[in-house]
Amino acid sequence: MGELLVDMISTKTQDGLIYKQCFGGSVANIAMNVKRLGAVPTIAACVGNDSLGRFCIDHIESRGILTNLIQKTKEPTSMVLVNKTNGTPTPIFYRGADRELKYTQALTQAIKQAKILHFSCWPISQPTSRQAIEKALDLAKQNGLLIGFDPNYHPGIWEDNHDGKDYVKSIISKVDIIKPSEDDAIRLFGEASPHEHIQKFLELGAKLVIMTLGEKGAIVCDGKTTMKFETKATHVEDTTGAGDAFWAGFYMGILKKRTVESAVNFGSAVSAYKLKFVGAVADLPTFQSFCESEEEQ
Amino acid sequence: MGELLVDMISTKTQDGLIYKQCFGGSVANIAMNVKRLGAVPTIAACVGNDSLGRFCIDHIESRGILTNLIQKTKEPTSMVLVNKTNGTPTPIFYRGADRELKYTQALTQAIKQAKILHFSCWPISQPTSRQAIEKALDLAKQNGLLIGFDPNYHPGIWEDNHDGKDYVKSIISKVDIIKPSEDDAIRLFGEASPHEHIQKFLELGAKLVIMTLGEKGAIVCDGKTTMKFETKATHVEDTTGAGDAFWAGFYMGILKKRTVESAVNFGSAVSAYKLKFVGAVADLPTFQSFCESEEEQ
Repeated sequence: MGELLVDMISTKTQDGLIYKQCFGGSVANIAMNVKRLGAVPTIAACVGNDSLGRFCIDHIESRGILTNLIQKTKEPTSMVLVNKTNGTPTPIFYRGADRELKYTQALTQAIKQAKILHFSCWPISQPTSRQAIEKALDLAKQNGLLIGFDPNYHPGIWEDNHDGKDYVKSIISKVDIIKPSEDDAIRLFGEASPHEHIQKFLELGAKLVIMTLGEKGAIVCDGKTTMKFETKATHVEDTTGAGDAFWAGFYMGILKKRTVESAVNFGSAVSAYKLKFVGAVADLPTFQSFCESEEEQ
Repeated sequence: MGELLVDMISTKTQDGLIYKQCFGGSVANIAMNVKRLGAVPTIAACVGNDSLGRFCIDHIESRGILTNLIQKTKEPTSMVLVNKTNGTPTPIFYRGADRELKYTQALTQAIKQAKILHFSCWPISQPTSRQAIEKALDLAKQNGLLIGFDPNYHPGIWEDNHDGKDYVKSIISKVDIIKPSEDDAIRLFGEASPHEHIQKFLELGAKLVIMTLGEKGAIVCDGKTTMKFETKATHVEDTTGAGDAFWAGFYMGILKKRTVESAVNFGSAVSAYKLKFVGAVADLPTFQSFCESEEEQ
């Protein structure tokens, strides 16, 4: 549930700056990935009744993903503009339609049939979509779904005069799995070591923390056992979407009833695969192929 | 006063859709044009504190236009996305910073020194910038400025639950000159002949109506005299910005104390010049050159 949007990625040309219209949104990317791996995702999102919204829906349909939970609104399709030519890219967030995601009867049906519910900070950053997530969370819990949350807090997307950090902290006890990056943890708690950050997440009621450390791998902790994972990346062409690839591999492992350790390894393998290609979503092999290459190791 | 923003203009490539980042906003284009013609414009506008805002400001500065009335806000720089590849382009409006234009002391100073105040429907379509325009209008009237208004009403840019048509109609009596296109008039009053539309504007208190009819020229009426003007266009390469070029030529005529008829002729000549080039703003000759070519005719 959440962000389905357009990423506008810049390139400098002789004639000035141009932007490529790319499919985007973390949860949409995760859905694309799990579909490639062999699962049946549904994206609950809201787009504008405009050319960008059609682009998003066409893209999803072309990958054989159901679009029945995609809502349309008169707000423009949300867009993130990434100016890659200015040193560290500072994204510009054009929030529009994605904020308008509403809870619907169709969502109730979908949740009752689902095994996993995933969301990030995008939909909880604005009041209407936040309310939809809160209702979905309640129903998901009642129906025993596994709930994954990406605590990718960013002040640039948050509602004015609403304490985003506080809200993110308050929601951590309501989910089963969180996967913060070091940057996410710093934005929420300030500078500290990964182990200290994990401790803070656990104190807030986190059940399973998967702390990703980029090339330094990941630390996974459920409050009792702490596991350290090395990265499986062999070649890094583009880091965009690596986290979404991890989520997809991890969820596939869980759906296949693997252990957490095994699921994290699948996540790392899928992420390492994605890192070899430019773009947010790679043409992933099936889950079976990943299983075979895991067993070879 | 009003819209200074980025136009993202699409091109279809083998690799998907790309957009060119272009300087835009009708009032900003008018300012660029009058500067080329030899006047001293100032743009009162609000942009985001981001790469697109810097692009707008750099562009203005590079043309030697003062930027001291340009405000910055944390909202993203407003953007209009124009998808030219889909038959009739339907613009997508990403309203951000432009809505945040506030009335400031610097604006009071600028208005006291100015001869003309120009605005369009953009700033009056949203509450904060509308309030800034209302204050500016009052002061402009007290100081005897000529006030020009572009009644380019479009429901897509208007504040929710605010009657844009009604508001536009209410403001017509407060300005000196309006320049509706046929589309503008239809959006405000429904289908009718140009003469009927002009009558409706006059009934609302318009003092001078310049009704532009594209290749059919223009009709100008002050309630007593009606003048008909043929187009001066000889070659039409791109109609973007033709209206802004007209405004600039017309205002230059007024600043040079020409008659309304002569000012309209200058407007038409500048517009015809712009039509020969691709892009919203052409590298116009000086006003003097236009005078010389007018006299030749």
